[in-house]
Amino acid sequence: MTTATASVPAVDAPPETQPVAWRHRHLLDVDGLGPAELELVMGTTDAMREVLARPIPKVPALRGTNVTILFYEASTRTRVSFEVAAKNLSCDVVNIAASASSVSKGESLVDTVRTIEALGAHMLVMRHGVSGAPYLAAEVFGGSVLNGGDGWHAHPSQALLDLYTLRSRLPGGSLEGRKVVILGDVLHSRVARSNVWSLTAMGADLWLCGPSTLLRGFDAWAARGAAGRRFTATSDPDEALRDADVVMALRIQRERMASGLLPSLREYAARYGLTQERLRRAKPDVVIMHPGPMNEGVEIAPDVAVDPRSVITDQVTNGVAVRMALLYLLAGARQRAGGGG
Amino acid sequence: MTTATASVPAVDAPPETQPVAWRHRHLLDVDGLGPAELELVMGTTDAMREVLARPIPKVPALRGTNVTILFYEASTRTRVSFEVAAKNLSCDVVNIAASASSVSKGESLVDTVRTIEALGAHMLVMRHGVSGAPYLAAEVFGGSVLNGGDGWHAHPSQALLDLYTLRSRLPGGSLEGRKVVILGDVLHSRVARSNVWSLTAMGADLWLCGPSTLLRGFDAWAARGAAGRRFTATSDPDEALRDADVVMALRIQRERMASGLLPSLREYAARYGLTQERLRRAKPDVVIMHPGPMNEGVEIAPDVAVDPRSVITDQVTNGVAVRMALLYLLAGARQRAGGGG
Amino acid sequence: MTTATASVPAVDAPPETQPVAWRHRHLLDVDGLGPAELELVMGTTDAMREVLARPIPKVPALRGTNVTILFYEASTRTRVSFEVAAKNLSCDVVNIAASASSVSKGESLVDTVRTIEALGAHMLVMRHGVSGAPYLAAEVFGGSVLNGGDGWHAHPSQALLDLYTLRSRLPGGSLEGRKVVILGDVLHSRVARSNVWSLTAMGADLWLCGPSTLLRGFDAWAARGAAGRRFTATSDPDEALRDADVVMALRIQRERMASGLLPSLREYAARYGLTQERLRRAKPDVVIMHPGPMNEGVEIAPDVAVDPRSVITDQVTNGVAVRMALLYLLAGARQRAGGGG
Repeated sequence: MTTATASVPAVDAPPETQPVAWRHRHLLDVDGLGPAELELVMGTTDAMREVLARPIPKVPALRGTNVTILFYEASTRTRVSFEVAAKNLSCDVVNIAASASSVSKGESLVDTVRTIEALGAHMLVMRHGVSGAPYLAAEVFGGSVLNGGDGWHAHPSQALLDLYTLRSRLPGGSLEGRKVVILGDVLHSRVARSNVWSLTAMGADLWLCGPSTLLRGFDAWAARGAAGRRFTATSDPDEALRDADVVMALRIQRERMASGLLPSLREYAARYGLTQERLRRAKPDVVIMHPGPMNEGVEIAPDVAVDPRSVITDQVTNGVAVRMALLYLLAGARQRAGGGG
Repeated sequence: MTTATASVPAVDAPPETQPVAWRHRHLLDVDGLGPAELELVMGTTDAMREVLARPIPKVPALRGTNVTILFYEASTRTRVSFEVAAKNLSCDVVNIAASASSVSKGESLVDTVRTIEALGAHMLVMRHGVSGAPYLAAEVFGGSVLNGGDGWHAHPSQALLDLYTLRSRLPGGSLEGRKVVILGDVLHSRVARSNVWSLTAMGADLWLCGPSTLLRGFDAWAARGAAGRRFTATSDPDEALRDADVVMALRIQRERMASGLLPSLREYAARYGLTQERLRRAKPDVVIMHPGPMNEGVEIAPDVAVDPRSVITDQVTNGVAVRMALLYLLAGARQRAGGGG
Repeated sequence: MTTATASVPAVDAPPETQPVAWRHRHLLDVDGLGPAELELVMGTTDAMREVLARPIPKVPALRGTNVTILFYEASTRTRVSFEVAAKNLSCDVVNIAASASSVSKGESLVDTVRTIEALGAHMLVMRHGVSGAPYLAAEVFGGSVLNGGDGWHAHPSQALLDLYTLRSRLPGGSLEGRKVVILGDVLHSRVARSNVWSLTAMGADLWLCGPSTLLRGFDAWAARGAAGRRFTATSDPDEALRDADVVMALRIQRERMASGLLPSLREYAARYGLTQERLRRAKPDVVIMHPGPMNEGVEIAPDVAVDPRSVITDQVTNGVAVRMALLYLLAGARQRAGGGG
């Protein structure tokens, strides 16, 4: 079982019929995925991209599977991406927008999750403002939990779509030794945290860059390494961008200024905004990324966002394919384990 | 036609092909359902539970039927339960969250219902804050109206799922002579009101228990009986729970304190909260119920909620099966009557 | 290609297999549609009405087509109408309620539209508070954009369903020379603006009537004509209604009074409300319309709304059929053009 190969399943068929060595029932973060497992996700995503290219981009693989999307934070992009991914696999989808007003006050998360399972959900995609909430959900949910973002902690499907996008864009398809820069509000970014795990696992030379107030903790982590993962933290964008192969700008939340962590958007844009001028320090064929939604003119200049080297739109489409792959692989693990929902 | 037997339809097939003596086009409350009709709902729910146990829990019985879910009050549990039930029968589902902000000011309920019918709805599931609103809707809607809860008045599908859950848990499957206690804010509870009808119809020895401010009206009703229904109202939880076969705790709305009907949640929990200590007065194999969502530590102690005798999660799953049965039976009545939508 | 005939497609089959001379990829307004194209929409709508009359009102024509409904303004009627229309054609539907709170601040409309396309949308139905927003969307979206209402500017599917409803109700099925009155807040009405184009294109004698503050600009337009379109603007309801064949009352927005354009709803109702008394000036078989939702007792009297000559409910049902026709025709044009999504 540990000799997981990258042999890709035939994704038109139900996952439980496939001889695939995927053993995780949940996807809570990417820190537990080794290179062979990441390869399997990548290969399965290739197969899903092929499905998306068909005139009717659907397969019956997960017909009858109930996917419930429970989002405690407003989202368009990630919610719709999971919804489209699930429908492309012929799942039935239930959306629950669990903002403060609609989920009953006083009900615990554990009760909500138990209820969703009793209502028939086989797979639960969940976004929550509190780091770790999906781990709690996974303890009580009989099906598969997919973390759609929890607090500042993790956003694993985003890290996997970033990885897939990079592999399909970088010459040779390998991250080994590539200089990858994540630029911006690293402190509050679950995207950055999940990318630390997956990018270092694939051998990238990872740099995190932002104002020192927004790098807090990462500098210490970078200095001592963690679980064998090494990266560099710096507040100097010139140093970070020099000869970079990839640069990913992070979204700046306007709320950060109220808390005194940022002086002003204008000042941030001047010092850290990803402009054409700043990009000239990177390699000529640098790959430009952004997880979206963008504040154009703040963390990224409008002409950079639509630069031919930008893969921002590819990230979105690959996100659907990666989430199809994840739903497919997790469903297989659940069914082989005899898990219900 | 009045000799309704409990012969259960073959629910994989469309309802209009079934020789079933169900004649109601709408489900507004359970007060009009006699024992034979309740038996038919129970038997059909058995068949739907069997569908839910399949690897793909779907039947094509209501393919092409448009079910519109119009909720004027926020809800997760009941709304999703109806949605999943409808999709399991292969209906098309339209959700309308008609909170104050989204339904146009000035449009009357009658116009909204006429519009929903003209948009193609065959079945209308409706929750409204005003008691009686679904009756008004049923007067103008050409298809079937299912009451998903109206004011303090009725919540018939909840009463039916409670009935189903009890029958499958009580030894012998009968409520005849069983002591059933509904505990809490009876005054504002549509769940309690609907359960009065269905539980007494099946011969239960029904007790309603709560602070006297939250029993108002029920004491007088209990004293004189109503339509031949008899039950007991008391503010003494010890008396109510003594030798009880079943106890159902009701959700306490925090808003009740603002109106002066409750001194404090802490005081309520101390006097009426369903604790293990209080439960010791009941029979050893007492069945513990709650319609959800729970305020754990207020009307029910956390360890009671997950006690092996608790059927709270079963209630949720049975809710999907009961609602499948109701949609199926009502659709059959509508189609036999030649009603459109 | 310019000899567009009204030969109606066989709508059970995919549109790209049909020999139909429809060349528009988007529907942004009706001003660009000539009589032959309007005939094609009408004929295709006839075919969709036939589908709606079937026991299962669905065709597989657009299976696998992703229709995303992006509404920046709250709406029940138009949103559900498009959703039901799309599902009747076997599309997959994604709803995005992009109110201020849920669409990320700072993201541009262009980025949102690009993201929706990258997520897999083939057709985008869009409502936006700013006039012209769907034109901007159409510039960047690779599939088809359908304007579901933009600011005060246009509401083309509403104008087309009005046209369809009138043709099926007027003796002879022709608008040529018929006196059609649009009554109310013309100034802020996208319904009125789109109807100016389609009704005059079909030869109607169009009258716009309302308080002079709510006719601003239309009087000048009426006086000089525009693109060969002629209509009459007046603030005198008696003159407008005299011998009218059709009268369409517009919804009064209560917000208009705050801005000083209306003295009071009561005064408006007294001078311009569509009452039985006022209707007596019209022809005896006058056709009564309203785009909904109605403020009964303000712009229309309750007994007029349900008068046998009222076609208000027909408008709603025809709306579903017209939107099915539009989705069908636009999908065909997109596919013939090799456009993706």
